Amino acid sequence: MITAICPGSFDPITLGHLNIVRRASRIFERVVVLVMVNAAKPSPMFSIAERADMIRRVTAGMGNVEADTCNGLLAEYAKRFEHPVVVKGLRASTDFEAEFQMAQINNAINPGLETMFLTSSEKYTFLSSSVVRELAAYGSDLSDFVPREIIDEVLAKARTHGGKTNG
Amino acid sequence: MITAICPGSFDPITLGHLNIVRRASRIFERVVVLVMVNAAKPSPMFSIAERADMIRRVTAGMGNVEADTCNGLLAEYAKRFEHPVVVKGLRASTDFEAEFQMAQINNAINPGLETMFLTSSEKYTFLSSSVVRELAAYGSDLSDFVPREIIDEVLAKARTHGGKTNG
Amino acid sequence: MITAICPGSFDPITLGHLNIVRRASRIFERVVVLVMVNAAKPSPMFSIAERADMIRRVTAGMGNVEADTCNGLLAEYAKRFEHPVVVKGLRASTDFEAEFQMAQINNAINPGLETMFLTSSEKYTFLSSSVVRELAAYGSDLSDFVPREIIDEVLAKARTHGGKTNG
Amino acid sequence: MITAICPGSFDPITLGHLNIVRRASRIFERVVVLVMVNAAKPSPMFSIAERADMIRRVTAGMGNVEADTCNGLLAEYAKRFEHPVVVKGLRASTDFEAEFQMAQINNAINPGLETMFLTSSEKYTFLSSSVVRELAAYGSDLSDFVPREIIDEVLAKARTHGGKTNG
Amino acid sequence: MITAICPGSFDPITLGHLNIVRRASRIFERVVVLVMVNAAKPSPMFSIAERADMIRRVTAGMGNVEADTCNGLLAEYAKRFEHPVVVKGLRASTDFEAEFQMAQINNAINPGLETMFLTSSEKYTFLSSSVVRELAAYGSDLSDFVPREIIDEVLAKARTHGGKTNG
Amino acid sequence: MITAICPGSFDPITLGHLNIVRRASRIFERVVVLVMVNAAKPSPMFSIAERADMIRRVTAGMGNVEADTCNGLLAEYAKRFEHPVVVKGLRASTDFEAEFQMAQINNAINPGLETMFLTSSEKYTFLSSSVVRELAAYGSDLSDFVPREIIDEVLAKARTHGGKTNG
Repeated sequence: MITAICPGSFDPITLGHLNIVRRASRIFERVVVLVMVNAAKPSPMFSIAERADMIRRVTAGMGNVEADTCNGLLAEYAKRFEHPVVVKGLRASTDFEAEFQMAQINNAINPGLETMFLTSSEKYTFLSSSVVRELAAYGSDLSDFVPREIIDEVLAKARTHGGKTNG
Repeated sequence: MITAICPGSFDPITLGHLNIVRRASRIFERVVVLVMVNAAKPSPMFSIAERADMIRRVTAGMGNVEADTCNGLLAEYAKRFEHPVVVKGLRASTDFEAEFQMAQINNAINPGLETMFLTSSEKYTFLSSSVVRELAAYGSDLSDFVPREIIDEVLAKARTHGGKTNG
Repeated sequence: MITAICPGSFDPITLGHLNIVRRASRIFERVVVLVMVNAAKPSPMFSIAERADMIRRVTAGMGNVEADTCNGLLAEYAKRFEHPVVVKGLRASTDFEAEFQMAQINNAINPGLETMFLTSSEKYTFLSSSVVRELAAYGSDLSDFVPREIIDEVLAKARTHGGKTNG
Repeated sequence: MITAICPGSFDPITLGHLNIVRRASRIFERVVVLVMVNAAKPSPMFSIAERADMIRRVTAGMGNVEADTCNGLLAEYAKRFEHPVVVKGLRASTDFEAEFQMAQINNAINPGLETMFLTSSEKYTFLSSSVVRELAAYGSDLSDFVPREIIDEVLAKARTHGGKTNG
Repeated sequence: MITAICPGSFDPITLGHLNIVRRASRIFERVVVLVMVNAAKPSPMFSIAERADMIRRVTAGMGNVEADTCNGLLAEYAKRFEHPVVVKGLRASTDFEAEFQMAQINNAINPGLETMFLTSSEKYTFLSSSVVRELAAYGSDLSDFVPREIIDEVLAKARTHGGKTNG
Repeated sequence: MITAICPGSFDPITLGHLNIVRRASRIFERVVVLVMVNAAKPSPMFSIAERADMIRRVTAGMGNVEADTCNGLLAEYAKRFEHPVVVKGLRASTDFEAEFQMAQINNAINPGLETMFLTSSEKYTFLSSSVVRELAAYGSDLSDFVPREIIDEVLAKARTHGGKTNG
């Protein structure tokens, strides 16, 4: 059984992320949405635990999807699964080059660890967590951008999070 | 009457920016050069007011161009005009992807708000405000990079601004 | 009064092209959809006259849009208008580089001739006339790809046009 | 059971193609290497049957890999499988944009048909069938480029195929 | 002594090519401008001999530059020099990927053969031989595009060459 | 005599950097590996002196290579050499655009200063100092990433450097 790992910051999870997770869950028997600690972004909007909790809520209807967190290297984390595959969404050609590098690094650290890509749905090519954070900071309507279940939580957090956004 | 909005940080305005503004002023009846507050760049070289003032000076000869400032979302700001069009310069294909995303986000927030692009003059494809700030920090000759009217002001500010540049 | 010229092969016009034309017609007072003879594609599906005719039919509801044909250089053709602007859609960053070159060449031949770009609607980023010709060759449903008014004509032509498609 | 379809011209199959097929065979239970007729390339080096035969020989050691041919649309062909996934290798960001378009078109014709991408092994990023055909035309050593089993066949064909290469 | 080889089709040589050759001649002691036969472009405007002759005329003032022709593989041709380096101009990021592949192939065939790139002067980023051929076909002024010494020859050839341009 | 200058942050030098330096040393008579102070990255892992020292150790076997440091503009630094050429490695097309801008800026400040590019060896396209810093922070095996002589030093520094990495 292949386990698909969907890694990311998910600060917060967007409709674009959810679209990738749902499609992966139709292809692979088990999907782990993995919240990574990103040391390069020191002031996240949500804590790791909050992000995993939001993911669990919005994927509650997908039986083979679970959430987990990781504060180390993805390539090391993946070793706990017998047949892991990393699954990422690609939005644009600039994404591609960064992801290509990431995939090669992960393969160098954990030989045989494959990364597979799904293309983002055209509806979500422009969408990212940083866009959501910026819109939330201005109190914009988020219904086209994040899952319905977490809209209020994102807006509430934005009101208290203030100027700490990393852009 | 269409109003062209040219948004940017303009910290400071460069000859590349001015080239786009001038060309937009020949196509559209009214052009607003809009200084945006960029929360992701916390230590600007010039204040918002200083930047707008420099823009007013260097566009003084273009009758249909004015400067304004905005500390919110561009898509909301544009609602005050009856027929707004966002006008941006494109320098390279990496620019293109970021601008493409921006244009789609603005259209999602303000349906019908169009973004139009002019290609940068080949003389200015390499030019950006951050390049100007870096050169100014070393006291370089800026006459090929910023409008003549603001060269002294940029160099003077660089001497006092010191290491706060955001690169 | 600015005249927007939307040049292309339009062999045949797609919903992506039509989306750009419609948006241009909301910004500019007059829009000319210009069918260019492309000597590099020697076996078109439709004749120049057929393509212009299809454009006239699908833009019949837009009062300020007209169709024309050109078998010379766009930069020379544009000289017949007092204030021409070339308007193109951009789908992806590879598009961008080719269009950037085109815009600079047109400006070198006809100084002052500007090219402005609109980003393709995300629904149509994958769409091109060559995709339509290939799908038509297999008798696929074209309703998501070309305007309703010309679907039958495109399918009929594909049945007789056979293997001459240029891919 | 998911069936991975690896479509391509395979004229001839390269070590880069074989690398993708092998990696797909470790992730998916069944892999079909599908030789597509490409009407836009009218003078192939090898016939469809010859290409499929070479694929069968070089994948003989992979139990869950088979070869097939298709002279229609991939999106239609895929309908014969219960859970098909298209699997492609990505070599560079220009590849990405063309593949992104292809994936969206296939999804428009066959809703739900997913395309997944593996990144090419860095050893093969420069490799393509057209490179192989050109090198073979000059009688170059092909051992770094095509599977050992078909080197002689490719060189022999190149001697008789002459100037018909499509570049 | 390093010999820089500047390969290309040069059908015809443009001011952009000449700019690269001149800059290479200031860095390397000997520069060979190498006209390659490109089998993928079967109907060139000028014969190989005509192209080499034009190159000789426009580089007559550069003492360390010579022209040569090659109907085989560049990587094999380079073996006749003790310390060859291939020198190419890069105009845009799409150029880059194709040139990157070329450089890796040449290095695979001729281990140790390096390819070095100069960035095109911003004045010439839009310029290519195919642009020149198209403009010449319409009798346009070519003085911004090809060296003065060959303008008449290119225009004369265009009048007789007619529709054979490869676009 | 041409002096090749290889500028960079080298925090620390990687096997990818070393590969470029070695290849440059085979083409040019003298190579200066130049450690630049990057004001935009305020918390480097190694001091400028430590970085230059590591470079000297790993290039000890290359007779025509030396290390130097620069806390000003590269274009000014280069003026101390009679025939300087800047030499950089290119890993991907996004690299290309940034480097293209840099090359043009350097040429604007120091007319005639050329930048030449070598393509990264395919083995190192994914490699960067920031990747090394991140892997070192997790204590990963670095033998595929940095020269053998400095592995222990990088790992030791990572243990004390902690969370100051710039990502």
